[in-house]
Amino acid sequence: MLQHNAFDPTFEADLDRLFRWRRDVRHFQTVPVDEALFRRVLEAAWLAPSVGLSQPWRFVTVDDARRRDAVRRNFVRCNEAALADQSQDRAALYARLKLAGLERAPRQLAVFVDPDPAQGGGLGRQTMPETVAYSAVGAIHTLWLAARAAGLGLGWVSILEPAEIAGALEVDPGWRFIAYLCVGYPEADSAMPELECAGWERRRAPTSETLLHR
Amino acid sequence: MLQHNAFDPTFEADLDRLFRWRRDVRHFQTVPVDEALFRRVLEAAWLAPSVGLSQPWRFVTVDDARRRDAVRRNFVRCNEAALADQSQDRAALYARLKLAGLERAPRQLAVFVDPDPAQGGGLGRQTMPETVAYSAVGAIHTLWLAARAAGLGLGWVSILEPAEIAGALEVDPGWRFIAYLCVGYPEADSAMPELECAGWERRRAPTSETLLHR
Repeated sequence: MLQHNAFDPTFEADLDRLFRWRRDVRHFQTVPVDEALFRRVLEAAWLAPSVGLSQPWRFVTVDDARRRDAVRRNFVRCNEAALADQSQDRAALYARLKLAGLERAPRQLAVFVDPDPAQGGGLGRQTMPETVAYSAVGAIHTLWLAARAAGLGLGWVSILEPAEIAGALEVDPGWRFIAYLCVGYPEADSAMPELECAGWERRRAPTSETLLHR
Repeated sequence: MLQHNAFDPTFEADLDRLFRWRRDVRHFQTVPVDEALFRRVLEAAWLAPSVGLSQPWRFVTVDDARRRDAVRRNFVRCNEAALADQSQDRAALYARLKLAGLERAPRQLAVFVDPDPAQGGGLGRQTMPETVAYSAVGAIHTLWLAARAAGLGLGWVSILEPAEIAGALEVDPGWRFIAYLCVGYPEADSAMPELECAGWERRRAPTSETLLHR
């Protein structure tokens, strides 16, 4: 037997569709997310690949109104700096999109990484310690796809100061902040990235500048 | 309409199965991978999320025997250092698994990131410049899942020196090395991580130490 493919072509086509529909969602309905569904989607993240099977990601659900407010205030402050760096209209548009998510998403999550987890015994990360952070990103992407398959949308907020978020959430001071995620039912469904809809940027296929051969 | 779910429960179940079967594969058949299939799987990576829609990942297919040999030699050298750091038996096992992949995988890929891509206009990465690297990780994970759905296996090699790999592949000196990937048909199919089969480590579900509530 040369190969064994446990997945049929229909699944492959649906998976491709999922990749295209998996977008950064910023506009959420306020309808709550069923707790069991949220938990199931969250658990998928623990199936992600990790360096030396260390599963170094640390997820923090954020429900406390004051903590959410601290995150939102940090976003607004960072964003003022970002706006100063950008041509005004595009950056303002970007900020508005992200802020919308922070204000309305019924579920919010912060993701950290333990930079030196006991699990995995340090395997595979001597020359590239950043692989623990990369493992956390794989977990986020897994959660993202699981959420989208379940009809939920996810938005990744990165215009934040890591130290401020860690402080606001009172997590282990050794952890490193990776991402802040907004989750909920999207207001609209579209396979087109929101930045593309807004005329900001377009998604491209491989080119000779991004795919090389050696 | 409260929600719109474009994916049915069968797809969700298959996706969960894909997450469980998506493993770090080190033992490959030597049978070649169809070029059109490989290209299709590779193109899926370009659908991954990226900060500011910057698509900062740079993939390099590695087919030249001398370049592959340079990568393998760097792995062996790094691994000697890793072995010195680890309890001998576990680290030796880990090294043997990874080396097997480098020696037999019919397709090999290096992944880099352009730390300051023109595309995306710098959006969303002022406070967290590492998000460009995170975008490349999302692309790798997308490729990984697409490969697995098509019956292919992928192994991620991280015991390498980034500067050495960049030099061996003669890429843009400004790019940052993220990962070296081995791709091919796996020798065996299993939903259990190879490190788990080998008694090294086991995959865990969320615990109160890895999933917190605030």
